[in-house]
Amino acid sequence: MRFNVIVVGSTGLVGQRLVYMLSKHPWFNLIGITASRDKANKKYKDVVKWSLDSKMPESIMEMEVYDTNLDIIDSLKPDIVFTALPTEVSKEFDIQLVKKGYIVVSHASNNRMDKEVPLLNPEVNADHINISKLQGNKWKGKLFKVPNCATSILTLVLKPIYDNFGLRHVFVSTMQALSGAGINGVSSMAILDNIIPFIEHEEEKIENESLKILGEVTSEGIKLNESFYVSASVHRVNVLEGHLESVYLKTNKDVDVEDIKKSLIEFKENKIKNLSLPTKPLQPIIVRNEKDRPQPRFDRNEGNGMSVVVGRVRKDSRNWIKFNVLGHNTIRGAAGNGILIGELIAKNYNDIIQ
Amino acid sequence: MRFNVIVVGSTGLVGQRLVYMLSKHPWFNLIGITASRDKANKKYKDVVKWSLDSKMPESIMEMEVYDTNLDIIDSLKPDIVFTALPTEVSKEFDIQLVKKGYIVVSHASNNRMDKEVPLLNPEVNADHINISKLQGNKWKGKLFKVPNCATSILTLVLKPIYDNFGLRHVFVSTMQALSGAGINGVSSMAILDNIIPFIEHEEEKIENESLKILGEVTSEGIKLNESFYVSASVHRVNVLEGHLESVYLKTNKDVDVEDIKKSLIEFKENKIKNLSLPTKPLQPIIVRNEKDRPQPRFDRNEGNGMSVVVGRVRKDSRNWIKFNVLGHNTIRGAAGNGILIGELIAKNYNDIIQ
Amino acid sequence: MRFNVIVVGSTGLVGQRLVYMLSKHPWFNLIGITASRDKANKKYKDVVKWSLDSKMPESIMEMEVYDTNLDIIDSLKPDIVFTALPTEVSKEFDIQLVKKGYIVVSHASNNRMDKEVPLLNPEVNADHINISKLQGNKWKGKLFKVPNCATSILTLVLKPIYDNFGLRHVFVSTMQALSGAGINGVSSMAILDNIIPFIEHEEEKIENESLKILGEVTSEGIKLNESFYVSASVHRVNVLEGHLESVYLKTNKDVDVEDIKKSLIEFKENKIKNLSLPTKPLQPIIVRNEKDRPQPRFDRNEGNGMSVVVGRVRKDSRNWIKFNVLGHNTIRGAAGNGILIGELIAKNYNDIIQ
Amino acid sequence: MRFNVIVVGSTGLVGQRLVYMLSKHPWFNLIGITASRDKANKKYKDVVKWSLDSKMPESIMEMEVYDTNLDIIDSLKPDIVFTALPTEVSKEFDIQLVKKGYIVVSHASNNRMDKEVPLLNPEVNADHINISKLQGNKWKGKLFKVPNCATSILTLVLKPIYDNFGLRHVFVSTMQALSGAGINGVSSMAILDNIIPFIEHEEEKIENESLKILGEVTSEGIKLNESFYVSASVHRVNVLEGHLESVYLKTNKDVDVEDIKKSLIEFKENKIKNLSLPTKPLQPIIVRNEKDRPQPRFDRNEGNGMSVVVGRVRKDSRNWIKFNVLGHNTIRGAAGNGILIGELIAKNYNDIIQ
Repeated sequence: MRFNVIVVGSTGLVGQRLVYMLSKHPWFNLIGITASRDKANKKYKDVVKWSLDSKMPESIMEMEVYDTNLDIIDSLKPDIVFTALPTEVSKEFDIQLVKKGYIVVSHASNNRMDKEVPLLNPEVNADHINISKLQGNKWKGKLFKVPNCATSILTLVLKPIYDNFGLRHVFVSTMQALSGAGINGVSSMAILDNIIPFIEHEEEKIENESLKILGEVTSEGIKLNESFYVSASVHRVNVLEGHLESVYLKTNKDVDVEDIKKSLIEFKENKIKNLSLPTKPLQPIIVRNEKDRPQPRFDRNEGNGMSVVVGRVRKDSRNWIKFNVLGHNTIRGAAGNGILIGELIAKNYNDIIQ
Repeated sequence: MRFNVIVVGSTGLVGQRLVYMLSKHPWFNLIGITASRDKANKKYKDVVKWSLDSKMPESIMEMEVYDTNLDIIDSLKPDIVFTALPTEVSKEFDIQLVKKGYIVVSHASNNRMDKEVPLLNPEVNADHINISKLQGNKWKGKLFKVPNCATSILTLVLKPIYDNFGLRHVFVSTMQALSGAGINGVSSMAILDNIIPFIEHEEEKIENESLKILGEVTSEGIKLNESFYVSASVHRVNVLEGHLESVYLKTNKDVDVEDIKKSLIEFKENKIKNLSLPTKPLQPIIVRNEKDRPQPRFDRNEGNGMSVVVGRVRKDSRNWIKFNVLGHNTIRGAAGNGILIGELIAKNYNDIIQ
Repeated sequence: MRFNVIVVGSTGLVGQRLVYMLSKHPWFNLIGITASRDKANKKYKDVVKWSLDSKMPESIMEMEVYDTNLDIIDSLKPDIVFTALPTEVSKEFDIQLVKKGYIVVSHASNNRMDKEVPLLNPEVNADHINISKLQGNKWKGKLFKVPNCATSILTLVLKPIYDNFGLRHVFVSTMQALSGAGINGVSSMAILDNIIPFIEHEEEKIENESLKILGEVTSEGIKLNESFYVSASVHRVNVLEGHLESVYLKTNKDVDVEDIKKSLIEFKENKIKNLSLPTKPLQPIIVRNEKDRPQPRFDRNEGNGMSVVVGRVRKDSRNWIKFNVLGHNTIRGAAGNGILIGELIAKNYNDIIQ
Repeated sequence: MRFNVIVVGSTGLVGQRLVYMLSKHPWFNLIGITASRDKANKKYKDVVKWSLDSKMPESIMEMEVYDTNLDIIDSLKPDIVFTALPTEVSKEFDIQLVKKGYIVVSHASNNRMDKEVPLLNPEVNADHINISKLQGNKWKGKLFKVPNCATSILTLVLKPIYDNFGLRHVFVSTMQALSGAGINGVSSMAILDNIIPFIEHEEEKIENESLKILGEVTSEGIKLNESFYVSASVHRVNVLEGHLESVYLKTNKDVDVEDIKKSLIEFKENKIKNLSLPTKPLQPIIVRNEKDRPQPRFDRNEGNGMSVVVGRVRKDSRNWIKFNVLGHNTIRGAAGNGILIGELIAKNYNDIIQ
């Protein structure tokens, strides 16, 4: 089982992670990478400002970067297209691609809330993939969206709690890493010895996307989960990678801290869709019992960046549950999740394209 | 009106701030400073690791540091003693001082929850000063406590909301500055590119002290306010000064965002005790309307570090109020508040000592 | 003595410092500020991304920002024009201004090495102002340049050493602050937990401008000092303000460390031009004897940012002198020096314009 | 070929690196680890404040930590003892160990300049191992020292230059990482937004040890190389790992930049002793041609942290050579070099013990 894939928008931070992870993927052949016109027709190593701690793979260095346009993509005939474009560009280009018939896994925030577009965090809602069929009357291809970074991390933890104990309220205050804003997103003068308590549109994404990811498959698409709600406050902090979230939540049933932990540790995957996928972490949620974990620098790479780490699970005097959850925002929260979605698609390829 | 004052424990971060602010105070003569024995009988400039951005005042540089012991303090005959000792030391030494008859303003966390000991955040609860009379049967002097840093900042904002709209729940996730842990409290290897989601005993302090500061004066001392509760999650971040707090709260009455802002802006001081005190800021609470404020580096020095700055006041879909509040933790949250308490005591001196 | 002045390019970091320092200047009336077209005709507070720790002065907040063009400047009739434009813009606009007859103090790097253009670090070479007369045959106005930031800091220290002991070699390794690159010059992702050992064209500026600043006035302009040479290696570090330089130098005569220190401490000003100027620091060079100073965060504001601080003066086994020098790069190294030059011009105004 | 080894002082930063690297070493069995008494008789994972980015190996977690004393070491009978103790302790304990007959590889700075004690940077001076024979009249065992971190990095680069072109002067200004001071060595309050231009005794170590490492084997021990000299200025910067050094040097012969680069790239190992050792990097010196490298965060892990990276090689107007060199200070500069020395000893074991 080998699939030909391309990365559209390969030089940004998420693009770099995609290229890195795809350069040695067991199922995917990376047959093309694109970037904006000024970088086209040059070698990848000469146009990318490589920003990962891991070295650029040799196999990628010499790859030619193509211009991001439909004709070139047509000439490549990819089975799956991963897009990591700025939202303003993505909202048009994604649609052009699916109209042409491509299967697209898109990282930008456009179309995420469309009810017939699967917004996937595979361990949580792999079964949502089925609603892609409803796209049939809109275009030839299929669009799949990768959720917002902080939301992917959060919903992975909300899912087992919701399933086991029900949920009413979720309050989340995030401390988000610099990489979430891209290579040049946050100036050093703005963030040294500082915190910025704002990220454009981020709170709405967390609040809305969570309800869709934990939503229900219906004949008309995904129905938002309206049994609980999420309220978010976001902050940018001076950390390279790893979003840390401080969560308060109220379950339907009163539960013990140990029950919560058990439900998190035992959570493995979506019950409906088989997830023997190469990028799926052995343990999606790791629970730590030390009094001062998770910490971004020490815990962000758990499960190759695909696991989230929960710590300080406790209950307050009114039986609200509190904890911290940490996830690698450009892996679990972006490129890694994108590839996991790609793998899920690959596994269900015949179903999807028919 | 001049009072002779001393600073016990003058070389730590809070001690330095106290010494700095007292070196040019309109009401207080700084007649002595103490430190642990190894620093005694030397010049201040030779034993202190000066860590404020402002330069050490000339008048202090040459001051002799005394050993922290009762005989020396007796020889100085101070009207007011400010203590900034480690809690383990303070819990004994404070009591020795008040037993000897001194009026003590103490920064450590011991005895803060004693019901006859005023825990003061003057704009909020200056009237609590009166309960110091109840200490009469325990010792000759009087003990006054400065609250926990994050709590002083938080309660300043809770007070007008509580008074105007009532309060039920308060959830607070803090992002606390390095200075809160003292000069050597946080290793650089521990915090660079990192966040530590834990500070020993800090959450309990915020949760408990808030209820006392907004508590009620009774004939037996302060009765905790049990009409609401506070649940806290604390985090240490790589910022020099300024605690930023992300607050979610539910009022008794449904309110508009503009009403909340108005109540914060109009809040000036405790209704019972006159507060024409030199260190009181003109505007205890500053409300900013920009979408990305308050920020520690740019807002921590408002009102000479004595004002707190509120921003991003908004309401979520279930009518919970959300906002950020920032305060200078070693000024508003510690030394500045200590001196404001000292001034309140000075103004009511005859009342207190009789 | 009052002069009407304007700031061209008022919204960058150097522009902000200029506006801040001019907003309350004893000799200068700030009658206009300009910026690029998209910011024109708006209030300063609405277009500037204020990045100084000091608050924006009230008097400036409401000032209207003009478009940067000659007609508007003509309508303002300023006595002195301070320009803080990007070099690509400055190299044309400076010349247009001096052709029109304006007296221009320019911060960009264009024209700095022209031999009839004074490149001024007033305590060092205020007498170079006289060569501005040689510009008479090129244009009606006069152009004065502010040197490179690291160079201003370095040459202030080289001058007394050169005068007293002669100089042969100077090796300097700089650790330069983020502010030197402007508000958005260095991405946080690039510099956190990192150092960048390169700043475009910076080494050439230090090596060349030093020789001009310590050069000689001749009838044809400034003759470079060729009796010594400077070799520079520059590094960007994660510090907000304050360039720290590690200097090795060889004097002509063998000297004692104490002689070097004495010459630095006693250095006050240029011998030829009187420098009773408001922005001149009392002590241009401060020498510290502690083993671990100067440090950017603690020493950069000495003399209101106009003094440089020298420390660790010592001699190695082959009689090379080593020390560190620190200066506030956007004050001493840029805007503060620019204003000092403006004051020097004001004091010699009649001479210059005749 | 298997050797039983122990790590004495296993919980500090260098101790952690040693334990990590030895936990899966092809030649060495880690049979014991020690620490100070308060940590003894507990599991490693319960007493260590693990500070490496790599996870603690499972095999180590449960290891019992022994008290650092001779009786316990005697009971373990190690072939080689690695010590990573504080200098004050090491200077006594190292000697007790060698008197007892052990072969000791010691990281502390005591005894480094003793002329019959090999101070080894294997690619540079593996042949110095032979002088350990001269220790025979002092004690039964043999003492080998790991050089100062900044010195190991520097001398690796000086060696090929010295061999090919001769050396006269070396000026080095270092920017050293936090890890060099140990887990709690630098307070975050001291270094955030700051640089400290001082590290106790560091400059003397660089200046002296360099001359020994490039020294000559004589019948009386190592004779210092007196044909050149090194002058150092050291600075602590806010970087986790990786010492960056700015070097100026004068060779005996005038050389081209390309010749220097060639000599660095071609340098592989000591000519006398064979170095097919598992920890030796394929390429001890990597030369980069980009204008802005090496950078600590991106280059410190080259060759698993055992290679140094050189960049910006250039020549100034007086034919001095300038460049930057970066090395991982706790791997190449400490534990990695210690293990490489251990391997060199293992390879020559029979020679050494006879």
